[in-house]
This record gives sequence, C-alpha cells and structure tokens, in this order.
Amino acid sequence: MLIGGPSSTGGVNRGPFLPDVAVVGAGPVGLAIAWRCAQRGLRVVVHDPTPGSGASHVAAGMLSPVAEAYFGEHELTGLLAESAARWPAFAAELAEAAGTDVGYRTDGTLVVGLTADDLAEARRLWAYQQGLGLPITPLRPSALRDREPALAPRVRGGAVAPGDHQVDPRRLVAALRVAAERAGVALRPAPVARLSDVDARVTVVAAGCGAAALTGLPVRPVKGQVLRLRAPGRGAPGFRHVIRGYADGESIYLVPRYSGEVVVGATVEERADTEVTAGAVLRLLRAAVDLVPELAEYDLVEASAGLRPGTPDNAPIIGPLPGRPGVLAATGHHRHGIVLTPVTADLVTELIVTGEPDPLLAPFTPARFVPEEERKWN
Amino acid sequence: MLIGGPSSTGGVNRGPFLPDVAVVGAGPVGLAIAWRCAQRGLRVVVHDPTPGSGASHVAAGMLSPVAEAYFGEHELTGLLAESAARWPAFAAELAEAAGTDVGYRTDGTLVVGLTADDLAEARRLWAYQQGLGLPITPLRPSALRDREPALAPRVRGGAVAPGDHQVDPRRLVAALRVAAERAGVALRPAPVARLSDVDARVTVVAAGCGAAALTGLPVRPVKGQVLRLRAPGRGAPGFRHVIRGYADGESIYLVPRYSGEVVVGATVEERADTEVTAGAVLRLLRAAVDLVPELAEYDLVEASAGLRPGTPDNAPIIGPLPGRPGVLAATGHHRHGIVLTPVTADLVTELIVTGEPDPLLAPFTPARFVPEEERKWN
Repeated sequence: MLIGGPSSTGGVNRGPFLPDVAVVGAGPVGLAIAWRCAQRGLRVVVHDPTPGSGASHVAAGMLSPVAEAYFGEHELTGLLAESAARWPAFAAELAEAAGTDVGYRTDGTLVVGLTADDLAEARRLWAYQQGLGLPITPLRPSALRDREPALAPRVRGGAVAPGDHQVDPRRLVAALRVAAERAGVALRPAPVARLSDVDARVTVVAAGCGAAALTGLPVRPVKGQVLRLRAPGRGAPGFRHVIRGYADGESIYLVPRYSGEVVVGATVEERADTEVTAGAVLRLLRAAVDLVPELAEYDLVEASAGLRPGTPDNAPIIGPLPGRPGVLAATGHHRHGIVLTPVTADLVTELIVTGEPDPLLAPFTPARFVPEEERKWN
Repeated sequence: MLIGGPSSTGGVNRGPFLPDVAVVGAGPVGLAIAWRCAQRGLRVVVHDPTPGSGASHVAAGMLSPVAEAYFGEHELTGLLAESAARWPAFAAELAEAAGTDVGYRTDGTLVVGLTADDLAEARRLWAYQQGLGLPITPLRPSALRDREPALAPRVRGGAVAPGDHQVDPRRLVAALRVAAERAGVALRPAPVARLSDVDARVTVVAAGCGAAALTGLPVRPVKGQVLRLRAPGRGAPGFRHVIRGYADGESIYLVPRYSGEVVVGATVEERADTEVTAGAVLRLLRAAVDLVPELAEYDLVEASAGLRPGTPDNAPIIGPLPGRPGVLAATGHHRHGIVLTPVTADLVTELIVTGEPDPLLAPFTPARFVPEEERKWN
C-alpha cells in the first residue's frame, strides 16, 4: 500500500486527522479518483475553489475510442477503448450512488464527409481504424440518410461507429460531487498554490492545465471554443447520433442531448485565453448548418471557450511523479478527459491502495517527461 | 396649453400632487420627452419596471437619415433628416446635463456592396437618395479603400454619406435617466397594465411594442438579432466609419465605437420572440467577415435580440390619441427610435405645452390608424 498503514496511525507531527489522499482539482478525473478512493475506505479531501469549471465545463462528452483513434497514437487508443468499455458500469454505478442521471447515451456516432474531399479525408482514417480491428462501418448514402434524415442532402457519405457513445459532462461533474460527498469525501474550496501546502499521505494532482505550475510537467493549455444550441420549442433535436463531420475541411462534431441541447465543437487552438471569437463561431456554425441544415433554426444559447490540458504526445500523464514521493499525477487528458475518467480513477485508486502500478499505465507515466537526473528519489 | 393651468391648481378630486405628465416607457423616446417636459417646468413621472430594456438595448444607434431613406417613405425621410439635424445640439446639451458622454460620433457612413449584384442593389438606392438631394456620394474603389483599408479587397464599390452619424444607445439611455432625474422627473418602477391606472393630466404612451396593448394602435413587434464584437486587446476597431453593406444579398451594418465595440446587425423578422438563433448569427457573422475580414479575430461578446415597434407604414405614431382625451402616443419608431428621439421629444413637449401640434407631426398622427367612428371624442 503506497500510503502505508491506516491513517489513524499517522506520524506524530501530523496527528490522526491527516487525510490519506488529497486530490487537487475537482474536475471529473479528480472527483472520480476521490470517489473511488473513498469507496476503498480512504479518507479523502479534494481541493478546488471552482469545481467543474475547467475543461469539463466546455466538453461535449463524446466517448469515442473509435472515432478518436488517430494515426500514431496506438497506446492512447488502447486506453480509450479500455475506459470506454468501463463506461456503462461506471455510469450505472454513479447514477445509483448520486441518485441522478449523467446523460449516458448509446445511440452511436456517425462520421460523415460533406464534400468529396472531406469524404476522402474521413475514409483515410476509417481505413486505419478498421485496420486496428475497431468497430467502424462505412454506410451507403441511402443507409446514412435512413439513420439520420436530418443530414444535408449534400453530405457525400459516412460511416457508423456504434460503440462510440456520449455522456453529459456537466451532469457527470454534478453526480460525481454528490457521490463523492456521500462516500465521505470532503471538498475544500481554497486554491492550492504549491503542493507543499497540501497535507496528506498521498497527493493526486488532477488539476488539468494547473498541473504545469504545480508539478513542472509539460501540460499546456489548448483552447477549444464550443457552442450550445437548443432545439426550438424545447423538443429533442432532430437527430440522435453523435455526428462527427468534415465540412469543407472543417472538422466538427454535433452532440444531441435528450434535453434539446446540441453541443457544436470544437476549435483546437494553441492559445491560453478563453475569449470567444467571431471567426471561430462563424466556422463552427457554418460547418454545423452545412451538415445538418435544421440547426439554423435552433437557438444559440451559449458560446464558450475552455482550455484542454495538452501534452507533448497527446497522451495523459498518470502515475507517480519522479523525485516527489507521495505525489501522483492524473492530468494531461487533453481532448479525452471524459472518456478516460473511469479508467484513470480505477488505476490511480489501485495504485494508491496497492502501491503497484497497473501495466496499462506504463505508457502514461510522468517519468517519460522527467530527465533521468531528476528521478533520483523515485 | 393642452394640460390646462399649472398643476398646483389641479382638480379637487386629484389633489395638488397630480403630475402634469405621466410617461409610460423609459426608453430613449419616453425619457427624452420626460426630460424636455421637466425643463419646461412640468411635473413629470415616468413609469417603467425595466428602463432601457426595450428596442434601445439592442439598437446600434445609427443616425442615418440618408442611408435609411427608402423608396416610398418620403415623409419619414423628412422627419429623419429633421431629427438628425437636431442631434448635435441634443447630444451636447444632454452630455452637459448628465455629465456623461453619449458616444455621439460624426465619422460618417460608408455604404458598400460586396459583389456586383450587391453593388447594383446599393446603386439603385443611392440614385433615389441623390434624386432627393440627400448627401451621398459614390466613391471610386481606390477612394473607398483609402477611407477604410480594413474593407475586404473583394468589396466591389461603395458610397459615403458623411452626415450619417452614430450614438451609443445604452449610453444615451443612461444619460437621459440622469438628466431627467436631475430635472426633477420621478421614475416609478411599477408596470402599467392599463392607462386608467395612470394618474396625470397628460399621459404619453412611449411604450414601444407595449403601446399596442395599452392603446389598440397597430404596433407590432419586429424582431432584430444583433451581435456585439470587441476588438482584440481592447483597442479601437480597425475602421472608423459606420459601414452599411450588402453582402451576397445580406444587408448588414457594422458600427464601430471608440471603446473597441463593434455592433453587427441586424435581422428583420416578423416574430415576437427574443431568442438568438444559430442561423441569424451565422448570416450576420458571414456577412460581417466578408466585408471586413479582420472581424474574424474579434471577440464575440454578446448576441441578443430585441423587438422593434413596427407600424403598418413603417412610420412612427406621434400625437393625440383619438377618442382618448389627455392621451398622447409616441411609439412605433421601428428601426428609427434613436435618430428620432430629439425631434419626437421636442414636438411632443411643444404639443403638451401649447396644445398645438407642429405641422411636422401631421403625417404621423395616430388618427391615421383610427377609424372615423372612433374619433368622436377628439
């Protein structure tokens, strides 16, 4: 057990009330780790002045191990698939624990191309994904339209990834807060400026972009701008699949919720501000309306921007921090924080409880970004 | 004097504290009337639960007697010109009285066409406006670009209306509130459901779209959607003229403020809701960026919708209400409420003080919408 004996036998200087685990950051990853640790009988504190205000607040909540399987990211693809496989049970257990629905929805994802060029671009990726044995199936145009009549007649073609699902990230955070608190987790609203200010046997840095300042890890903000539309009359949207599309070279997604909300995203910008720009809104709306014309009649209810925690290899950073005994990282989830929440929480909790990292974590160790000479304490 | 003697000699049933004038509606028109009346020594009360929350909150504030001179609206064009001519002195007096600037700006207006078709459409209107002797002058493309280098190279041509100015409607309302209150006007935040609830010698209905329910006049809501952008770094926008443009058949305007704000408007929709729709935002942004490409880099800080008080002939309704002694209307200003504020306030105040309508008001009398048989009390 990484943290030693039960906390009630803690060191003389720290007294019996030292938490077993302090989590810095109350996004989905941090809250899920806290919840899982509390389920294992650990005493857990979560530090965050504004829970759920990071990347998850803007995220669409696509659970897309297939459509997000990109060239050269083989190990990440494996982790996405592993976590997506855990989502049904995770969603059910969380809904039960929190007494609230998290919007988990299994209608599947369509990947479509507007023009011939867009379709060619999409096909290159399907071929790669099919080569990995992932479940994605090209559809004839008539079959595509049978599935989603709301697609524009111009849309040239597409494929279906039936296992790529969705969840509502804002509901997810709300449910995780309830579940964690019911399991005994304490939420502390003060910001954490330095890890030395945190008093616990194990500290988990799940602070998204904030992890860089706390740990020195190479986590950088990657700005994303996102719109939220609402179907007129507060009915459900006129389509049920998540639609990922290429439209005149623009890559966008449309995520329909039962509530009538449609999330349209997202830009990927190497910037650290959170301003919403006219050009980004124009590009997102143009592509959205080109793919699904009825969206022009929808209300535009929110335009927002968030910062994803990006890493040099686009993969998350999960595991012990070299040279910092008792400190774990669970950050750098970039565009995959929602889908990776269950597996991250499970593996970090196991690591804390057993002291042994799961082999699944090996490619994602913080050590890959720490020079040898700085690892002496590890 | 329409209202009889000084209020201190008021009727026995009403007591000495009966106001001389009650204005229903604290938009620019209502507040300016109240201010002008108070300057003439009248006791004035303005009723509005949410001052400045109507059409003016969304309005761009163009003072465009020339660019807004449309076919078949000859009498309205005359009133626009008369009011625009009063604006410089009105703005100066108001700024002095309120101790605050109203954003009155005299850089002039460019009217431009993006494509050859757009330019042909614009030229038809210039020819009409020039035929009326109004100051609008076509520019060679090089002269257009010398004036506004920010215009897209694609813009085919344009004209300048140097006398078409602008003001900031939100600053205008704020200044009018201060000036009116300093002049002794009382603001009452309760809504007015019926005119019989209003106790005053003269009641002025300046309630915008709300005038229909209060008076039966044919004032209908005409929805307009508007965006507010902000230049990056909070500098001034990269252009100084008001730009009115036709872009692929879309008619839009861009109003730059010293603060960095650019107002982009506006849709004209026969609807009574105030939802912001994806399609409208897309059309406005596309036309704006087509005309002035740098706007793509601006922040989108607000998207909003308001309801203009439209009338069957697009002209305002100003004057005594037939069959309703002591009730005046000052409504139906449609897209022209800001430019018409000074002349409306001056003429309504004169009418109240002298009992004689100015001949300028004749075309705008409420009587034009009231059948003969209902005018018996007039």
